[in-house]
Amino acid sequence: MDRDWNHLSRNRDERLARAAGQLGSRSAGRHVAHADVVDLLHAVLEPGDRVCLEGNNQKQADFLAGALLQVDPSRVNDLHMVQSVLSLPEHLDVFERGIASRLDFSFSGPQGARLANLVAQDRIRIGAIHTYLELFARYFVDLTPRVALVAAHSADAAGNLYTGPNTEDTPAIVEATAFRRGIVIAQVNEVVDKLPRVDIPADWVDFVIEAPRPHFIEPLFTRDPAQINEVQVLMAMMAIKGIYAEYGVKRLNHGIGFDTAAIELLLPTYGESLGLKGKICTHWALNPHPALIPAIEAGWVESVHCFGSELGMEDYIRARPDVFFTGPDGSLRSNRAFSQAAGHYACDLFIGSTLQMDLDGNSSTATLGRIAGFGGAPNMGADARGRRHASDTWLKAGREARSGLGGSRGTPRGQKLVVQMVETFREHMQPAFVERLDAWTVQTQAGMALPPIMVYGEDVTHVLTEEGIANLLLCRSDEEREQAIRGVAGHTPVGAGRDRRMVENLRDRGIIRRPEDLGIDPRQATRNLLAARSMRDLVRASGGLYSPPRRFRNW
Amino acid sequence: MDRDWNHLSRNRDERLARAAGQLGSRSAGRHVAHADVVDLLHAVLEPGDRVCLEGNNQKQADFLAGALLQVDPSRVNDLHMVQSVLSLPEHLDVFERGIASRLDFSFSGPQGARLANLVAQDRIRIGAIHTYLELFARYFVDLTPRVALVAAHSADAAGNLYTGPNTEDTPAIVEATAFRRGIVIAQVNEVVDKLPRVDIPADWVDFVIEAPRPHFIEPLFTRDPAQINEVQVLMAMMAIKGIYAEYGVKRLNHGIGFDTAAIELLLPTYGESLGLKGKICTHWALNPHPALIPAIEAGWVESVHCFGSELGMEDYIRARPDVFFTGPDGSLRSNRAFSQAAGHYACDLFIGSTLQMDLDGNSSTATLGRIAGFGGAPNMGADARGRRHASDTWLKAGREARSGLGGSRGTPRGQKLVVQMVETFREHMQPAFVERLDAWTVQTQAGMALPPIMVYGEDVTHVLTEEGIANLLLCRSDEEREQAIRGVAGHTPVGAGRDRRMVENLRDRGIIRRPEDLGIDPRQATRNLLAARSMRDLVRASGGLYSPPRRFRNW
Repeated sequence: MDRDWNHLSRNRDERLARAAGQLGSRSAGRHVAHADVVDLLHAVLEPGDRVCLEGNNQKQADFLAGALLQVDPSRVNDLHMVQSVLSLPEHLDVFERGIASRLDFSFSGPQGARLANLVAQDRIRIGAIHTYLELFARYFVDLTPRVALVAAHSADAAGNLYTGPNTEDTPAIVEATAFRRGIVIAQVNEVVDKLPRVDIPADWVDFVIEAPRPHFIEPLFTRDPAQINEVQVLMAMMAIKGIYAEYGVKRLNHGIGFDTAAIELLLPTYGESLGLKGKICTHWALNPHPALIPAIEAGWVESVHCFGSELGMEDYIRARPDVFFTGPDGSLRSNRAFSQAAGHYACDLFIGSTLQMDLDGNSSTATLGRIAGFGGAPNMGADARGRRHASDTWLKAGREARSGLGGSRGTPRGQKLVVQMVETFREHMQPAFVERLDAWTVQTQAGMALPPIMVYGEDVTHVLTEEGIANLLLCRSDEEREQAIRGVAGHTPVGAGRDRRMVENLRDRGIIRRPEDLGIDPRQATRNLLAARSMRDLVRASGGLYSPPRRFRNW
Repeated sequence: MDRDWNHLSRNRDERLARAAGQLGSRSAGRHVAHADVVDLLHAVLEPGDRVCLEGNNQKQADFLAGALLQVDPSRVNDLHMVQSVLSLPEHLDVFERGIASRLDFSFSGPQGARLANLVAQDRIRIGAIHTYLELFARYFVDLTPRVALVAAHSADAAGNLYTGPNTEDTPAIVEATAFRRGIVIAQVNEVVDKLPRVDIPADWVDFVIEAPRPHFIEPLFTRDPAQINEVQVLMAMMAIKGIYAEYGVKRLNHGIGFDTAAIELLLPTYGESLGLKGKICTHWALNPHPALIPAIEAGWVESVHCFGSELGMEDYIRARPDVFFTGPDGSLRSNRAFSQAAGHYACDLFIGSTLQMDLDGNSSTATLGRIAGFGGAPNMGADARGRRHASDTWLKAGREARSGLGGSRGTPRGQKLVVQMVETFREHMQPAFVERLDAWTVQTQAGMALPPIMVYGEDVTHVLTEEGIANLLLCRSDEEREQAIRGVAGHTPVGAGRDRRMVENLRDRGIIRRPEDLGIDPRQATRNLLAARSMRDLVRASGGLYSPPRRFRNW
């Protein structure tokens, strides 16, 4: 059979030859001048290419994103973009200019409304929305990038890369691309003689470009303690006493909201007063949240593995190497793929927030006119059914879910705690509890195969509001589950629709627990309980090591 | 607060200083002579250390395993071994000699009986048995190695490592250890001037030792087609026509048995005759199974990402770079962490075998007197509930599982196909279907928190035997599920205990399908259908590129 088995290799060589021809003596080894970037892209890109433009939660290959916009759409078009986050306008501009046409992604927070608009105009065809680890997994199966455009902090003459503390997605992207005969182009902030450490070997990189400006990094995980309200303090107390202490949760992941920041800030105060130090919250899969500083300083935290880093935390991390994963240079080594694996398989609890939850416990942040995706939440907010190692936390949750059941559902098995923490009303008095998720309408609008549900009701174990905790593990019918949710839905229409007798029965059985059932006096839920009440307090707690970005400073 | 935040760094420095003191001028940069290995281990190890000794499915750090046995147990003891596979006798000898006392692992196939014995004698305390990706996840949370002993093919003077095609676990182990201030020691087969490629940067490695012998590699995925029987051919026909074609399965993972090897060998013959080329089995997360050669040669396969490699497949892989992930040197780049992520999140089907299945569909390979673990099966044989991208396969399975259900279980959602393929009787006429798994007794024997179940009945979608296919997705009660399983359990006592009327009803509803229901004539199920009927045929199919290890050759 005369089949060509070297198509990818030959095609790669052709691209490299075109680049060499185009740049000639203007390139030196792997290094290309930033003025030549568009020539380079014209040389190495082909119509229809699958392209990964590194857009992370935080670190952005923004120079390469801008360069991609400058290619001639008559030469480079129909690109299939595969990237985890769409955060810069350029990430959608490439579609408006006719350079790209297809998209597979994970999260598009700031660009969600515009994305929906482009889909409605048929300017973008969305393949699917993924959780991060799922998208990386597809890089190795059916969405392998042909060309990867990534960002690193610095490179040496050979082309080895130092990513800086925001290693994030880079290793997964580059490995998938480089070992399938694809082309890897890295923008770096600077070229140096000796790198502080090697994050990506030069072998794996084809071209390095010193960008005219350092790449953009977004401080996405900084929550100003001044904005935490007393309802959130109350909910955080309930989380600590009613869930963390109850199940002995040691290994966990937190969402990025103010609710969970409140929990972090209550550990060294309220948590300490309950005698929980060393018994909960010792091992984390978490970005370096500034709100965790007081708990770290008080000796609560043994280990934090990070998806990415956080601006301003560099010196603090460097000074706390026992807690964080750092390189020989002292700076953070993050890795989104491994930290998501850790969140999935090595954590006993995920707690996050949502915009809407229905009566089956399904929750979603998808709202009308936006296509946002969910990032890591589906991966961490799902029971990891492949997990086989036991912990007391996981066994207790599994026992609660299965007690009294027979058949395959009654086979003993542990379960991950997945907590949705929501105030009953969100901004503009929108109820968080609804009869029907907006996700169903979004599904129709965007022509999706399924409604965009962030965390499925089947996977949620607890719903926590200011009214109490509903333990869905203990519910034994759809009706009980519905009433448990209604029973903590406060004054929302869903809450008002409760069957009062049934809710009282659920409370008697410990399925619903009010603050008073937990021995929590709501009058004690004041901001005074927060270990830091301002950004300045966080800086002080860090011994001056934490240096918040300017926008978070009012001093 | 006068807390010490540099314990790990300082302790690391102390270990390195001890090594420098011990070895003096005998070491050169990162390079240590193999004669000095025991001195090195005495210098860097401390009692109670968590140690990862690289034991993979295939590649073994065998020189370092032997060296560890030679340390003085009065100086180095109580080690906590964290390693994915226990395959060499040395892996248990360290416990018998009192050097190690605790163990967390994934698989102990060949050492399973001895392991059970040592546990019974209280010589080993087992933390837990994990699926691979889960164990790697814990390396980044609460099981981070203090010292890692790994294997690579070669190193350069600087200490960069080339793993060879069996990259396997090395990147995950080294990343977790190196970036938490641990010590990484690598044995290599040779030190060279220039590596074919860099798999692990020198930065991440502390010591390199040229071992006196190349590290051991086990050809674990080679199945001689001569040993495939006609029952397996029949079952493979049913898998292809009744499951793969039915659901349009393109992205998948196969177990390592003869059953699934038969499927691989039927693709270019039986699959071709059904017109399925290009419609099924295009993208794989799979080791380079020799049995896949005929399908690759016939143009069925677009892509294979590998957990590890397979002895003898080196030249074949090198000649088929369009299909495999390879480096610039042409040799395979495998990666167990990424391939397990791919198996979990990017595949629509997992098919494997088991030793026992109960009436709830729970299956296990745990047998009395052995503690074996399950490797990757739990991760791939579980519904990936974090998955959000749709495929027709996954949607169809999800629809079947949910049709007619209300509440949270009725919310539309896709589902992974998890197929257990078993002959009703295994070796020595042991029935594969049992009322009660041996796993329950093993649990008691070994003092485990849960019975060691490999794939839970909740996650199994199809049971395939020579008698037919039971589609558990369509069952709506424990009773239906039990009868569906009994209905394909053949002449085993479990099969004989079926309710005949109910089984016929399940068959009428398409929940049970016999070969004749699928239009398969068992008389056609002969070995003639296999695209290769011997090792020699596989070599021939590869154009002479595949070079089986000697034990598989009879010519």
